[in-house]
Amino acid sequence: MGMMCVMRWLDYDGEACSAGRALGVLGDRWTLLVLREIFNGVRRFDDISRHIGVARDVLTRRLTALVDDGVIVRVPYQDPGHRTRYEYRLTEAGRDLRPVMLALIAWGDKYRADDGVPMTLIHPECGAAVRLATVCDAGHRLDDRTRLEMAPGPGARLRAEVG
Amino acid sequence: MGMMCVMRWLDYDGEACSAGRALGVLGDRWTLLVLREIFNGVRRFDDISRHIGVARDVLTRRLTALVDDGVIVRVPYQDPGHRTRYEYRLTEAGRDLRPVMLALIAWGDKYRADDGVPMTLIHPECGAAVRLATVCDAGHRLDDRTRLEMAPGPGARLRAEVG
Repeated sequence: MGMMCVMRWLDYDGEACSAGRALGVLGDRWTLLVLREIFNGVRRFDDISRHIGVARDVLTRRLTALVDDGVIVRVPYQDPGHRTRYEYRLTEAGRDLRPVMLALIAWGDKYRADDGVPMTLIHPECGAAVRLATVCDAGHRLDDRTRLEMAPGPGARLRAEVG
Repeated sequence: MGMMCVMRWLDYDGEACSAGRALGVLGDRWTLLVLREIFNGVRRFDDISRHIGVARDVLTRRLTALVDDGVIVRVPYQDPGHRTRYEYRLTEAGRDLRPVMLALIAWGDKYRADDGVPMTLIHPECGAAVRLATVCDAGHRLDDRTRLEMAPGPGARLRAEVG
């Protein structure tokens, strides 16, 4: 088991936090809804705008920010007889946000789906439902109630008033 | 494998979506940062306010909304010689948001931690690092690249212009 330095979160700088940094990219409702559309194969500006009912200027700002953050790319396409337009596709960093979506869906399915689960994500190879499991690197499957401990990493920073 | 009705997301009402509903509770940066503090054991108003640097009126609004949404509860406490104050604790629905936090941390660790990972979450029983895995109910472990399919559930709603 080795030495484990348990961490009192309040002693550390809250800015040195990967969840907070991820939220710097994702931290608003529209951004995550836009990503949901792209994950679900809805990639074109007009389709996204209409499907989630977001104003075009808001959508433009969110898409631009996601491109700047390296989460999506803008790819030109052309329908016959139309001028060149753009669609949005996930980068590798964008695809790596899938667990965030899966975690949000699982919570909404449990706590906000009184009229039934809206949709199920399926493993195409076998047809079974997909979900997240919490595991550890030693191969244990963790219950959602298992208490976790925090250990500071190389990027941790003590707060000024503490250090 | 059975019958699988693959779903064209654009044909469905985007409001019938568990991720979207979860974002109705969580969909802003401050709300998720407040939850991060409480997950990390920082439960008192003054401590949260100072640690994340949020204005007191904003924090009050976010905490009230999280209480109303059933994610946290307000619990009285009293330090000797002080009046009764309140701290905030996760409900079961709140604790069930842990995978959302773990997913955000994992993404931030990979894409926003050039100066090293700020902290590691540890399985106390064995000391190994904790993470999320994507699995299916048939017991397969899925790669992050595995394409998923969507199947409509009982709560799905076709869009008005489609149905």
